Amino acid sequence: MDRTGRLDRLRSRMTADGVSQLLLSDLLNIRWLSGFTGSNALMLVSADRTVLITDSRYEIQLAEQTPSWIAPVISGSADGDRADDHIVGSLEGSTLTIEADSMSVAALESLESAIRDAGRPVDLARSEGLVADLRRIKDAGEIDRLRRAARIADAALEATLTWLRPGKTERRVARQLEWEMAERGSERPSFETILASGPNGGMPHARPSDRQLVEGDLVVIDFGATVDGYGSDMTRTIVIGNQPTDVQRRWYDNVAAAQAVGVAAIQAGTALRSIHRDTHGHLVASGQNGVYQHGTGHGVGLFIHERPILSSRIEGDVELGMALTVEPGAYLAGVGGVRVEDLVVVTPDGCEALSRFPKGLVPSL
Amino acid sequence: MDRTGRLDRLRSRMTADGVSQLLLSDLLNIRWLSGFTGSNALMLVSADRTVLITDSRYEIQLAEQTPSWIAPVISGSADGDRADDHIVGSLEGSTLTIEADSMSVAALESLESAIRDAGRPVDLARSEGLVADLRRIKDAGEIDRLRRAARIADAALEATLTWLRPGKTERRVARQLEWEMAERGSERPSFETILASGPNGGMPHARPSDRQLVEGDLVVIDFGATVDGYGSDMTRTIVIGNQPTDVQRRWYDNVAAAQAVGVAAIQAGTALRSIHRDTHGHLVASGQNGVYQHGTGHGVGLFIHERPILSSRIEGDVELGMALTVEPGAYLAGVGGVRVEDLVVVTPDGCEALSRFPKGLVPSL
Repeated sequence: MDRTGRLDRLRSRMTADGVSQLLLSDLLNIRWLSGFTGSNALMLVSADRTVLITDSRYEIQLAEQTPSWIAPVISGSADGDRADDHIVGSLEGSTLTIEADSMSVAALESLESAIRDAGRPVDLARSEGLVADLRRIKDAGEIDRLRRAARIADAALEATLTWLRPGKTERRVARQLEWEMAERGSERPSFETILASGPNGGMPHARPSDRQLVEGDLVVIDFGATVDGYGSDMTRTIVIGNQPTDVQRRWYDNVAAAQAVGVAAIQAGTALRSIHRDTHGHLVASGQNGVYQHGTGHGVGLFIHERPILSSRIEGDVELGMALTVEPGAYLAGVGGVRVEDLVVVTPDGCEALSRFPKGLVPSL
Repeated sequence: MDRTGRLDRLRSRMTADGVSQLLLSDLLNIRWLSGFTGSNALMLVSADRTVLITDSRYEIQLAEQTPSWIAPVISGSADGDRADDHIVGSLEGSTLTIEADSMSVAALESLESAIRDAGRPVDLARSEGLVADLRRIKDAGEIDRLRRAARIADAALEATLTWLRPGKTERRVARQLEWEMAERGSERPSFETILASGPNGGMPHARPSDRQLVEGDLVVIDFGATVDGYGSDMTRTIVIGNQPTDVQRRWYDNVAAAQAVGVAAIQAGTALRSIHRDTHGHLVASGQNGVYQHGTGHGVGLFIHERPILSSRIEGDVELGMALTVEPGAYLAGVGGVRVEDLVVVTPDGCEALSRFPKGLVPSL
C-alpha cells in the first residue's frame, strides 16, 4: 500500500489549508495513513513528524503494522497516563487542528483540559473532511482490494442461487451468502447483509427475517465482501421461481434502465450532482411508483458509505480513481421493492464496473 | 422489552440532574430506549414527549419498531430539510442538553447553526454518560438475551473443538466458530473473533491469521454471539494436542486462579475498583510473567465494551443487574498468551456465570 504517497498528499493538503499540525481521531483515517488497525488510536501529523498513540493491548501490533516513519507511543500503562497528555507533549507549534467530524464534544473538552494542565498556550483549530476528501480518490492498491472484494461477492452470490427457492428463510439464505464470501477469503460482510423478500423489500434497509421465500417473491439482495478492510457493495433483485409477472418486469426494467443511465453518466469531470439528477429523473420520467428518496450512491473504501454521497446537494465533480455505487430503487410499502446497484471505479474511459454478477430478475449466468 | 420502564428511569435521572430536554445522538442509547435499529437517528426526550428523527429509508421500520409514545419524524425528504431544524422545531423549553460523548464537534456546530437560523434563544448544556449509566443495570429482558447469546457461544465452541487440530488455520477455525454460532441463531459475532495461536497469542487483540495450528500451541479464543442486539463475551485458552507442558499448565493455572478470584469478588456493594485490584494483584503475586496491562473486564449489553470498565481508576460499586466480564491474561511477546474470561450477571447471591463452557487447557465436556 502506498502509505508514504498518502502522507505526502495529506501534507500538501495541510499546507494548502494552512494546517500546521493535525490531530487525527477517526480510526479509518488513521488506518488509511498508517496501516494500524487497532480499536484505539490518535495520530498527530506535522510537517516532519507523525506520532501514533494507542494502548498496551496493541504494543506489538503497532510495531508490526506501521512503517518506520511513525513514532509509536503507548499510553495508559500507569495511573493517570492519558493519551491527551502525550498529544500535548508531542506538539511542536502552538496551533493544533482537530477533526471536528470525528472528535466528540467530550474528547475535545478532555484535550482542552490537558492543554490547560500543561500550562502552554495552544490554539485549537477545526477541520472537517480533510482526510475523507483525500480518501475519495483510490490508489492502485485500494482499487485492487475493492476489485477482489467485488469478485468474491459475485462468486458467492452465484454459489447461493440454489438457496433462493420457496421455503428457505431470508436469514438462512443471507447466512449462506455470508459463508460463501468467507470461504472465498472475505474478512467479514462489508455491511449488514440485506436480503428482503416480498413485502419486506418495501423497506430499503430491511434486515433478514425468518420470513420464508414464496414463489413469485421479489428478493432484494444488497451485500458485500471485505478484503484487507476494503468493502464491496452490490445489489441484485431476483424473482423466486423464475416467472416474473409483467408488472414485476416493468418495475425491474424501469429501475435497471435508470441504473444504466447513472453508470453511463459517470466520467471524470461530470458534476457529481448530475449523476443523481439523471438517474433519479430517469426513473421518475418512466412513470414508476415509489421512486427512491435515498441518495443514488456513495463512495466506497475502508468505510462502506464514504464521500462523495451522490445526492442533489453534493458539490464537486467526478474524479479519476473514485469508487462509487449507483443504486436506484423503487419501493412500495407492503408490496415489495426493486433495487439494482453496481460498484464502479472511475477510469480515463469513463468507469469500470467492479460488480460483474449478471443483472435480471432471472439471472442468466 | 421494558421500554417504558427505561424511559421512566431516564426521566427520573433527567429530573435529578436538572435536564429538561435531552438530545440523544448515540444510536445504541436510542435503540435501548426506543427499539429503533436504523443507522441514522436523533431522539429528543422531554418530560412529556419523545421525538425520533430519521430519514425516509427507515420510514416503515420506524413505524413498526417503535412504541406509540414516540412521535416519528422523517427528515431529508426535500432539499434543505435538515434533521437539526426538526430538533429545533420540536423544542419545548429554552434549554437543550446534548450527549457530549457521542455528539461530534461538527454535529454540535451544525445544531448551533440551526438554532441561530431559527432565531430563538436556546441554551445548550452538556451531559456525559447519562444514558450509558442507566444501561449498566440490565432488566430481565436484557439478561435473558445475554444468557441466550452466551449459551449459543458455549454450544458453538463445543461444536468447533474438532477443528482445533494441527494444520487448520486460525482463520478457518474462526470462520467455523462463527458459522456454528449463526446456525444456532446468533445475528452476528458480537465483536471481531480473536483466535490467536502460538506466538500470536502474545498479542491480546490479535486477528485470526493464516497461521496453521501446531501441536503444542496455546490458542486463545475470545468471541461471542449476538441475540437481539445483545452480545456475549467469553475467552478460553486451550492447547493443541491435549498435552500441555508443565510450563503451560503453570501459566494457565495462574491466570485461571486469578480469574476465579475476580469472579468470587463480584457482589453487589463491592467497589468496582477492587475487582480489578484483586484479580490483577493475585496474578502478580503468583509470580506470573507478562501480566495483563488491560482492564480486568467491562460491562456488556447492546455494546460489547460498555460501562463499567473494571480498571484501577473506576469509581462506584458493583450493582444488582450489572453484566460484567472478568478476563485476566498473561502475554509473552513472541511466545504466546493465556486469557480466561467469563460473562457474569450480578444477582442477590453474588453473581451468575452466563458462560458455561468448561475451563481448562484440555476442555473436558
